Amino acid sequence: MNGSLVIVGTGPGKPELMTPATRAALAEATDLVGYGPYLDRLPSMPGQCRHASDNRVELDRARHALALAAAGRKVAVVSGGDPGVFAMAAAVFEAVESGDPAWGSLDIRVEPGVTAMLAAAAEVGAPLGGDFCAISLSDNLKSWATIERRLRAAAEADFVIALYNPASKARPHQLGEAFTLLRTVKDGTTPVLFVRAAGSADSKVVATTLAAADASVADMRTLVIIGASTTRRVGRWVYTPRGAKP
Amino acid sequence: MNGSLVIVGTGPGKPELMTPATRAALAEATDLVGYGPYLDRLPSMPGQCRHASDNRVELDRARHALALAAAGRKVAVVSGGDPGVFAMAAAVFEAVESGDPAWGSLDIRVEPGVTAMLAAAAEVGAPLGGDFCAISLSDNLKSWATIERRLRAAAEADFVIALYNPASKARPHQLGEAFTLLRTVKDGTTPVLFVRAAGSADSKVVATTLAAADASVADMRTLVIIGASTTRRVGRWVYTPRGAKP
Repeated sequence: MNGSLVIVGTGPGKPELMTPATRAALAEATDLVGYGPYLDRLPSMPGQCRHASDNRVELDRARHALALAAAGRKVAVVSGGDPGVFAMAAAVFEAVESGDPAWGSLDIRVEPGVTAMLAAAAEVGAPLGGDFCAISLSDNLKSWATIERRLRAAAEADFVIALYNPASKARPHQLGEAFTLLRTVKDGTTPVLFVRAAGSADSKVVATTLAAADASVADMRTLVIIGASTTRRVGRWVYTPRGAKP
Repeated sequence: MNGSLVIVGTGPGKPELMTPATRAALAEATDLVGYGPYLDRLPSMPGQCRHASDNRVELDRARHALALAAAGRKVAVVSGGDPGVFAMAAAVFEAVESGDPAWGSLDIRVEPGVTAMLAAAAEVGAPLGGDFCAISLSDNLKSWATIERRLRAAAEADFVIALYNPASKARPHQLGEAFTLLRTVKDGTTPVLFVRAAGSADSKVVATTLAAADASVADMRTLVIIGASTTRRVGRWVYTPRGAKP
């Protein structure tokens, strides 16, 4: 098998936030496999095949990519952001583990990228300046009880919390439930940031507090950051001091 | 004041992991301010002034950068990785808050980058495939009790844990203490990854288990990842399934 598979992330949106390493990997690929809207961001290359799929079929998409690589193609699996953060890299290794044993000897590598949390933080200042955690609110693949347990632990230990996948049409109520839970632990004055389309030309920030946070502000393209006890505003920025106090 | 200040991260090491946006910001700057080794990675530009400083003087460095911007210079503050993750962005906003009130009206922006955790994860597979947290083990600016509280909470809630600043000459014993604490909560078979100089030409991975992890493997350039209960090996890779099971 002379094929290969590279898993890349195109970054948060703007082309200038995609790494040159990822750009080179895309240019070398014979086949691009990914969710349609991510592929649509990329310029077309002569002779390169595109295999666009719907959202929420990650494992099928991963198997398709592995089968192409096993057939000798040079495949790039395309995620947004960083491919290792709530994206395609884990799905590819799940498919390797449960699939054709020959896939285990394929040439597979991962190229890191700028994940949405980092782009969102940069838009507002430095809210991730202290210890932080990243939680996906999607309960498609884990229980809501697990998510609640992690939210509570993160709040009690005073992490800054970045929420991926805060809402979708199929899950409109979970972010509100998360805020309700967090209000039982954290102060109402805690800064909350809704950053939509972070790192894109059309990014939009709503800065508020935990007491006032309205979950309906968030959609699938929103990254939500909930501050630690030390997170504060200075002018138009929000930041978390590196230590206990500035 | 016509000056400006942009806070950038050069990524984990390899030039091809620095974003084009950061490269452009560096090219436009009249002055670069940063820790010497980070500045040394960058090609010199005619007419551009470099202000290198020692490690652990972040607040002084931030004030110097702000004073230069207030004097009309176009300043780039240079971190490694992403500037908002255990790096210079928070220090700049701390300096704004506690410094000359005029600094609050400066043109300041942050450019996101690829932080070490993402580069380390990409080297080994997809260990950050589930919910995860990032903790700096440095107690220069926060208490060790706070760090222990966060380690325990992260372990009990089954986050993947990424440890920044796991060890330095001044703090040789903390990573061992962290492993001791984590062993009281997590299974000894939990994968532990030491990734030195992730995303650099000379990166090196040591993959082991929590029971066998030897803290002396880590130095200042090492990123340590401790898996969740579901984190597993498949072939030469380590990954965390997106949900409860693959």
